[in-house]
Amino acid sequence: MVKVSVFYPNKPDSRFDVEYYLNTHMPMAGRLLGSAIKAISVEIGRSGEQPGSLPPFAAIAGFTCDTVDDFVQAFTPVAGQLQGDIPNYTNIEPVIQISDIRIG
Amino acid sequence: MVKVSVFYPNKPDSRFDVEYYLNTHMPMAGRLLGSAIKAISVEIGRSGEQPGSLPPFAAIAGFTCDTVDDFVQAFTPVAGQLQGDIPNYTNIEPVIQISDIRIG
Repeated sequence: MVKVSVFYPNKPDSRFDVEYYLNTHMPMAGRLLGSAIKAISVEIGRSGEQPGSLPPFAAIAGFTCDTVDDFVQAFTPVAGQLQGDIPNYTNIEPVIQISDIRIG
Repeated sequence: MVKVSVFYPNKPDSRFDVEYYLNTHMPMAGRLLGSAIKAISVEIGRSGEQPGSLPPFAAIAGFTCDTVDDFVQAFTPVAGQLQGDIPNYTNIEPVIQISDIRIG
């Protein structure tokens, strides 16, 4: 299984609307990407290693799929719609990573 | 639920022994941290957004706990042992984040 992770690196002037992201963007992503996505995860940054420190990432989303191709085929037709929604919740440019899930 | 994530940011001269990490370090972490940890995840970076590109992170580990305090109490007594093992598999200085699990 692979995980496509979307990281939102914090900057001093970062804006990130957690409620819009959780209640509007991610449900839209789930609908648009469809059954190729076997699981969705979202973590919202609380802190770095030290309590009260800025978390490195405002949010991290994970999309679990059987293969990278499954994700690409699901994502490509809806990429414009999903990416066009980003300014509605953040001014952070997301960083993408494709990983192999080895534990969990 | 909270997730303590450990990121290993890739650098041009990064060394990361995936097999040691999966077969020795993470099982040791599981044993030493004990029942405070409700779930462990490990993702190994395959690529960035573009196929064949360097993944931003060589690996990402996640430790799911009920509370941050649960993690701190489990981690503090074994921190030296776990951190002392890091040079056995990587020269990357890990980045830590504590997140709230909101979906998944």
